[in-house]
Amino acid sequence: MIRVAVDAMGGDHAPYAIVKGAEAAWREQIAEPVLVGDENSIRPLLAATSKIEVVHTPSFVEMRESPSSALRKKRDSSVNKAYALQCSGDVEAVVTAGNSGAAMAFAIFTLGRIQGVDRPAIMSFHPNAKGTLSVLLDSGGNVDCKPSHLVQFAIMGHVYAKYGMGIESPKVGLLSNGQEETKGNELTREAHALLRGVDINYVGYIEGTDMYNGSTDVVVSDGFVGNVALKLSEGVAEAITTFLKERIRKSFRRKLGYLLLSDVFEELARTVDYSEYGGAPLVGVNGVSIICHGKSNEKAIKNAIAMAKDFAAKKISAHLTETMQQYRESIDRRTTKES
Amino acid sequence: MIRVAVDAMGGDHAPYAIVKGAEAAWREQIAEPVLVGDENSIRPLLAATSKIEVVHTPSFVEMRESPSSALRKKRDSSVNKAYALQCSGDVEAVVTAGNSGAAMAFAIFTLGRIQGVDRPAIMSFHPNAKGTLSVLLDSGGNVDCKPSHLVQFAIMGHVYAKYGMGIESPKVGLLSNGQEETKGNELTREAHALLRGVDINYVGYIEGTDMYNGSTDVVVSDGFVGNVALKLSEGVAEAITTFLKERIRKSFRRKLGYLLLSDVFEELARTVDYSEYGGAPLVGVNGVSIICHGKSNEKAIKNAIAMAKDFAAKKISAHLTETMQQYRESIDRRTTKES
Repeated sequence: MIRVAVDAMGGDHAPYAIVKGAEAAWREQIAEPVLVGDENSIRPLLAATSKIEVVHTPSFVEMRESPSSALRKKRDSSVNKAYALQCSGDVEAVVTAGNSGAAMAFAIFTLGRIQGVDRPAIMSFHPNAKGTLSVLLDSGGNVDCKPSHLVQFAIMGHVYAKYGMGIESPKVGLLSNGQEETKGNELTREAHALLRGVDINYVGYIEGTDMYNGSTDVVVSDGFVGNVALKLSEGVAEAITTFLKERIRKSFRRKLGYLLLSDVFEELARTVDYSEYGGAPLVGVNGVSIICHGKSNEKAIKNAIAMAKDFAAKKISAHLTETMQQYRESIDRRTTKES
Repeated sequence: MIRVAVDAMGGDHAPYAIVKGAEAAWREQIAEPVLVGDENSIRPLLAATSKIEVVHTPSFVEMRESPSSALRKKRDSSVNKAYALQCSGDVEAVVTAGNSGAAMAFAIFTLGRIQGVDRPAIMSFHPNAKGTLSVLLDSGGNVDCKPSHLVQFAIMGHVYAKYGMGIESPKVGLLSNGQEETKGNELTREAHALLRGVDINYVGYIEGTDMYNGSTDVVVSDGFVGNVALKLSEGVAEAITTFLKERIRKSFRRKLGYLLLSDVFEELARTVDYSEYGGAPLVGVNGVSIICHGKSNEKAIKNAIAMAKDFAAKKISAHLTETMQQYRESIDRRTTKES
């Protein structure tokens, strides 16, 4: 069974929700979790008969700590220890719901970047009207990007959608303020020109409305726009749910209507519930790193462990390494030809 | 009654939907519309007894025409003629559902900018969970912005929310990837620092989730991010509506549930329906210019005329001129002190 290191100390509900999520993953034979963190906090939460391995490390990164400070002072933290276990081959993947900036910094520091990737990116999953999932990257890792970074995000998204989600030729779009060639800002216009020369199914500019109609499998943007997009989507879904709830409780007739539709509303709630997807992989590092929402509950952690196992089993990192190499060779060939 | 020039030739459903919208506004005594465009196309759509004034101009801007080309070649177009009528005092406001880039270009060219405003911005209206409206600017006018532009957007949003929507001290937030001081990109970080020194109720960074929970009255962003945000919101709302509709039609029980909840669903549909809000004012020009969705129907045009009348009656432009002057004087004072 694939072993997944789980940062027991990271997240708003750590260590309780993390330990319970790991236990659920173990019970359902999803993967073999290894809990990393303060043994004194973790052990009492585990069943006496539990066979889950605990790797003790007393230090951990606070949720509000700056990534650069954590990187200097918390080398022995639970999250970095988890990555170290992956480096040494003890585990094949890491899951953390802790400080996401620090998680990203330590993943890059300890696992290292895949050759050709300047900026690893956070990839989030979005349900669409077709009933499939689209991915968005970067969802918040890198706020100020160069055009070449967006090109790398596009290639990484392509590889994840192809090998991780089994889409033969994933449609990759660049998030913009309109589909016409004249649209875009300085950054996207340059990235758009570069992407035309890359050997992926690049469909050009897409608009916000396309993100949820299922017309695109991979949505590319810088981390600032991506993060705004991610949280805005949550915001709209929440506002609509609140709107419906408040009105439904106002009369008996409406409550009855709700009862008759309860399976539909439950399906909607599941569809827009982040915890169904577990977490967001940090793509572009040498290995598997799943970064979860700080507010992750037991279910989110269990699903993140399932995602981690899945990406490890499908050897996404190796596919990415290979594709990035092909891409760099194609650039080299072109540059040689031109000179 | 306030006279509003309506570009009869602009929009996917022009001139029919435009003429019908103007007739509805006239019938309901909202304002006195003046239809601008090709008389031969407009007259047959008007009732024989109609007293609506038609200003004939045969030329108009195509939906796909580039704004710069329109600005050179279409000075005699319906949209520019409408602005000219406002300049000469024949009307107090303009409504157009035509090519929005060209509408913006002509508004700036013919009406002129308010002193202190470098970049007029498009302001869109968003319903929130509190049942009020928030405004977002810039929603698409200016894709590449400087920090000073965002500061001007914030002041303009403040003025519109205060004098147009009657909010005494509107809460103004800067759309970002997180609320912490360490968040933001290069552009927002500099704008954030500048906004702290401006005499408005600036609440700092807000996230996408805040746009719909009613915590902020005015949301500021560059036009690229704003446009992505606007269309993404439409996309999520559409996807959720599609999701519910598809499932509801699948069984008799669900259809019955829907019937019992039909008033709630209708209210939701109205709340997320752009046509209820009519259009988006272009703020920062000397006058009133409401830019509507290209797909505007009769109701959208009627509501846009109501919005145009409202902003003209409330003398938003005069308030904005005054506030921008105070702001520039305060900068001058500070600069003098510092030197």
